[in-house]
Amino acid sequence: MPKKKQGVKKDRISPNLPGGFRDTPPADALIKNRLLEKVRKTFEDFGFDPLETPAIERTEVLIGSEQESKKLIFNVKGSQEKKSDTSLRFDLTVPLARFLSANPEYPKPFKRYQIGNVWRGESPQAGRYREFTQADIDIVGTSSMEADTEIIALMYQTFINLGIQNFLIKINNRKILNGLPKFAGFPESKLWDVLRVIDKRDKIGQEGVEKELGKNFSKKISAKIIQFLEISGETSSKLEAVRKLFSGSSIVEEGIRELEEISQNLASYGVKSENWKIDFATVRGLGYYTGPVFETILTKAPELGSVFSGGRYDNLLASFSGQKIPAVGTSLGVDRLIAALDKLNLLKRKATSTKVLILNLAPNLKKEYFTFARILRDASINTALYLGDDRAFQAQLAYAAKKEIPFVLLYGDAERAKNVVAIKNLITRQQQE
Amino acid sequence: MPKKKQGVKKDRISPNLPGGFRDTPPADALIKNRLLEKVRKTFEDFGFDPLETPAIERTEVLIGSEQESKKLIFNVKGSQEKKSDTSLRFDLTVPLARFLSANPEYPKPFKRYQIGNVWRGESPQAGRYREFTQADIDIVGTSSMEADTEIIALMYQTFINLGIQNFLIKINNRKILNGLPKFAGFPESKLWDVLRVIDKRDKIGQEGVEKELGKNFSKKISAKIIQFLEISGETSSKLEAVRKLFSGSSIVEEGIRELEEISQNLASYGVKSENWKIDFATVRGLGYYTGPVFETILTKAPELGSVFSGGRYDNLLASFSGQKIPAVGTSLGVDRLIAALDKLNLLKRKATSTKVLILNLAPNLKKEYFTFARILRDASINTALYLGDDRAFQAQLAYAAKKEIPFVLLYGDAERAKNVVAIKNLITRQQQE
Repeated sequence: MPKKKQGVKKDRISPNLPGGFRDTPPADALIKNRLLEKVRKTFEDFGFDPLETPAIERTEVLIGSEQESKKLIFNVKGSQEKKSDTSLRFDLTVPLARFLSANPEYPKPFKRYQIGNVWRGESPQAGRYREFTQADIDIVGTSSMEADTEIIALMYQTFINLGIQNFLIKINNRKILNGLPKFAGFPESKLWDVLRVIDKRDKIGQEGVEKELGKNFSKKISAKIIQFLEISGETSSKLEAVRKLFSGSSIVEEGIRELEEISQNLASYGVKSENWKIDFATVRGLGYYTGPVFETILTKAPELGSVFSGGRYDNLLASFSGQKIPAVGTSLGVDRLIAALDKLNLLKRKATSTKVLILNLAPNLKKEYFTFARILRDASINTALYLGDDRAFQAQLAYAAKKEIPFVLLYGDAERAKNVVAIKNLITRQQQE
Repeated sequence: MPKKKQGVKKDRISPNLPGGFRDTPPADALIKNRLLEKVRKTFEDFGFDPLETPAIERTEVLIGSEQESKKLIFNVKGSQEKKSDTSLRFDLTVPLARFLSANPEYPKPFKRYQIGNVWRGESPQAGRYREFTQADIDIVGTSSMEADTEIIALMYQTFINLGIQNFLIKINNRKILNGLPKFAGFPESKLWDVLRVIDKRDKIGQEGVEKELGKNFSKKISAKIIQFLEISGETSSKLEAVRKLFSGSSIVEEGIRELEEISQNLASYGVKSENWKIDFATVRGLGYYTGPVFETILTKAPELGSVFSGGRYDNLLASFSGQKIPAVGTSLGVDRLIAALDKLNLLKRKATSTKVLILNLAPNLKKEYFTFARILRDASINTALYLGDDRAFQAQLAYAAKKEIPFVLLYGDAERAKNVVAIKNLITRQQQE
């Protein structure tokens, strides 16, 4: 197509994005939409309803008691405002807690899903984006382990519905991890120093964990932590081993019983045993988890980390409502999942969803072109009419090829005389009248 | 459900939203999702592909040459940044222009749709929100009026597919409006003062327009503008009347010919004549339009203003790319459309998409409950298992009623003995085994 060059303006604006942001061009957006359609359907199959909350919340609401999250935040300021007291959400869980505290009339258990973008205001780093899409499901207002089971079953079913088989849901319980200081003999205040190291086991290996622990803890303490992490075997024998190791701790016993119940429920639900396991090194970064926690890796790309994770957070709502309202939920990292599936070559991209390009060959046949377009669209066949300024036949074919549109519809004076329409398959090069 | 009150914390955070923002609770989000599904499908029927751009752009990109838009903007600042040079997008057109300038390799005409939120950083006003959802379609890289026709045909088809009949697409051309100063005898610099008044005709009436014009212009000038606005009749006679009135202006003649071509094309496409008209008072607020402009009102709620509007903007891309790349597009105000449909009582809300609640009656039958849930979900019947902490039969029924779930599945020891499952319709109160 000939471009009308009118000379480059001197004051033109550079079309760059800010660091850490990216576009999702059509081929990627098509993949993402199709994936999200399946995710949404699975969420609704399980009786979850959608909720939308604004991108912007009061900063105080977002930060809450976790001053750490200040670092995560993008502050927002309206043009007429003197100072900023609002920010972009960094997850979808805090807004849910805020929503239910402001709207206590919704019947509990409240089951909602939310698919939306979140923003992280950290400095941009190589390969880390500052805006990404999450798909969250949560059940608020029940302490039943059946709710945790439903969340895990839904994670499982989401992968199945997406056609993904090689995944592993790792399940742990904060109540067990909370028993570590007493068991290993280090002060409560050091718990997070230990958990941060344990959490890295998948990346640095058992040896790495031992080495890092050795820097800050005595050999005896390290050895006990390692002993805990080395527990292996079937689910029931693992849990029995922890029970023996931590014997006498009522909080740990509670955690073990919860995992036992989840295990039985998952079997009842028919969640395949190869797709989940109890993993004592699963921690989850956020401070607000209080019970079972879960992470999911794609077993052929474990290095990409968890793509679907969550847990129980029984105290978060109390910071808004003043009431203890137990809750459990999980979050699918949509962009991370797509990146992982890409790495495993599981995604087939196409440049367009358009199936047919109607060639725009003769101005006197325009009425027919519009009619063809309407008929095809009414039949749900995605159809474009060629609209380029260059109407040469070859330019039109080249456009279809470049756009990867599989079929072109030809209707010129010759076809009109014969009262036919020609359809050309641009892949096989076959033409039919 | 009994709530465990643990005493109200003194330092609890108020769960308020910032002014001008709102949640979309499940009943509304269900409506919105279903509507957007149909919109998306219609856009794809017409051969448009999705594009996503980030919520945050460089402020310079957003403001461009329209310093006015500074007032519209929310500035954004990352936690580690000293000052803000990024902002939230206020529309989806500028990001499209930025995207195509940064990625010139995409074949033209480029047809994309984008459904996403935009933000307006103005001070919050009663009934005006600062975040809303738009669904945009644009065709970039063609000056053909067939593109403008496709855009209008798509607007038409979107309403039809949404089951809306009472709508009117009003079409005008900036090229005609640009002839006003010469025709009516006022300086070019006053054009926007006149257009702003004309634009209000639907709200203030022809008399109101006359009155407002009278404040700043002579009787003679006002009379000529009114003469232009009073042109009525069929499309062709309207256009003929303008041709006579503005005779000799080549830019106006171009505008008239464009509207003539669009008119013929719309008839060819089969767009019903009652659903569109040429309306010389249609202006569109934004400065970047250069040719045909369109607005759509719901004829039974015209006071709500335009819900679907756009036009041709042949110069916008040049501010980034330095090349003149003609473009035309339109934007559906999703929230405004929903508000209008609500006002016309055209939307039926339901509290949930869940069809069946499996009552959780006996702990020893848990395995069966999970199995039922799995079977129903596999059959795409949205199903919830009762998960509340209060397991009393009445509490479970009350939950289903409150949630407006139409069916409950009962399976207790009695049903088990009979080897049946009971389904109770909570609306008709009928029970079947």
